[in-house]
Amino acid sequence: MKESRPLILISNDDGIEAAGILSLAAAMDSLADVVVVAPLQEMSAIGHAITMREPVRARSWPFRGPSGPIMAYAVSGTPADCIKLAIDKLVPRKPDLVVSGINHGPNTAVNVIYSGTVSAATEAAILGIPAIAFSHCKWSGADFEASGRVATQIATRVLKGGLPSGILLNVNIPDLPYSDIKGCMITRQARSMWEESFAERLDPFNKTYYWLSGTFINLDSGENTDLWAVENGWVSVTPIQHDLTAHQTLEGLREWSWEDLAAESSTK
Amino acid sequence: MKESRPLILISNDDGIEAAGILSLAAAMDSLADVVVVAPLQEMSAIGHAITMREPVRARSWPFRGPSGPIMAYAVSGTPADCIKLAIDKLVPRKPDLVVSGINHGPNTAVNVIYSGTVSAATEAAILGIPAIAFSHCKWSGADFEASGRVATQIATRVLKGGLPSGILLNVNIPDLPYSDIKGCMITRQARSMWEESFAERLDPFNKTYYWLSGTFINLDSGENTDLWAVENGWVSVTPIQHDLTAHQTLEGLREWSWEDLAAESSTK
Repeated sequence: MKESRPLILISNDDGIEAAGILSLAAAMDSLADVVVVAPLQEMSAIGHAITMREPVRARSWPFRGPSGPIMAYAVSGTPADCIKLAIDKLVPRKPDLVVSGINHGPNTAVNVIYSGTVSAATEAAILGIPAIAFSHCKWSGADFEASGRVATQIATRVLKGGLPSGILLNVNIPDLPYSDIKGCMITRQARSMWEESFAERLDPFNKTYYWLSGTFINLDSGENTDLWAVENGWVSVTPIQHDLTAHQTLEGLREWSWEDLAAESSTK
Repeated sequence: MKESRPLILISNDDGIEAAGILSLAAAMDSLADVVVVAPLQEMSAIGHAITMREPVRARSWPFRGPSGPIMAYAVSGTPADCIKLAIDKLVPRKPDLVVSGINHGPNTAVNVIYSGTVSAATEAAILGIPAIAFSHCKWSGADFEASGRVATQIATRVLKGGLPSGILLNVNIPDLPYSDIKGCMITRQARSMWEESFAERLDPFNKTYYWLSGTFINLDSGENTDLWAVENGWVSVTPIQHDLTAHQTLEGLREWSWEDLAAESSTK
């Protein structure tokens, strides 16, 4: 009977002490049993890295939700490690939903690729568990009240309706009071890039080092993109997948003269 | 006049001292001017991580190709860092092609997500440069002679014909003598997952640590997948993209009752 309550696993890439994961855990606590398994240290821009050449450690972490203590572990690895280790070793049963965030700053456009917050949710989707990444579009000093409410609503829908196999939701929430948010818009990832301009400096020993720096460039004027949505007051909900195949190009590529290689090699 | 020769930038995730990148540089040396910019250390499974909170360094590296020295730099960061830094600071002009590898071991199915070799090529595609990731389907002790020849042929085609915008090629080469390779097959990424079983051990101080370990599970019986191709003697060529949007689900998701949120919030 007790197990009829759903279980939500929570992670992030800003680390277990970030304000965003506290808000997300508080929001999910009203819907389900929750377990937090998050990196001990900040892991932004870690992408889908996993730890293979070193061990990882997990330690129980004092984590307080609005209605009391929440089971939590801090892990020495990446967000993807957290999900893998949680599912294999730390959670009492298979979660019904994995949520990641609330990220401090947007994960829109090309930034989805670099995001550890998204990769935690992606790892869950690979393992066959519905998953949502939440990001609040303000890098620091955000008030997560509105984004916690949005997260509760979207998680409720996904708990009830599930998601198509292999698909997760990447949710970006504008930095607005709840009453000013226009609603949810289903979006696609905007085409964009970073134009790098590494800072080139000399260390105290007169050796050159570089520090990543750049300018974000939106290459997409569409009004159905994640960027457009959040800039115009909407919550952006982008379905994303871990199948990277560019299916639309398969037929075109088959028309290339690949048979040269076959012909050449079949003359064995 | 001199600049009419194409420029190929080469990276990997196994590190600048790996046999695979030496073979790839030797193969590309016949086609173009080449520059190698690769991680100083092995960076497998680093995914699309980038280095933001620390500086990176690049140092000139003695790298010998078949016809003499090749311009090369070892970088203290990730494969994605290598491409970003190379384009911004290290190469003499914008490359016509970026190739990554030859990876020691396959990057098929879900492993594409974790691969630093693929992420180097992905970063190039984001920056608008045609890119190919090459992997040889043997983890150690591979003879790269056949895969070097395959890489030359595929790179020649891409130098000549380009690639659709935002698309890169993920090439996996079976561990076979060249004469036994059946040819190139255009494939999609197989559905698959790793079933984790972390090794749980005690350190000398009696504290628990975990080491990632698992079993690869192919969930896909299709005969047009990357896994099927390499298992059946074909070079697998998978077009992949960094737009993660699950376009096929956009319409379905728009039918969800998202308007609740709009309605609730529009009562401001």
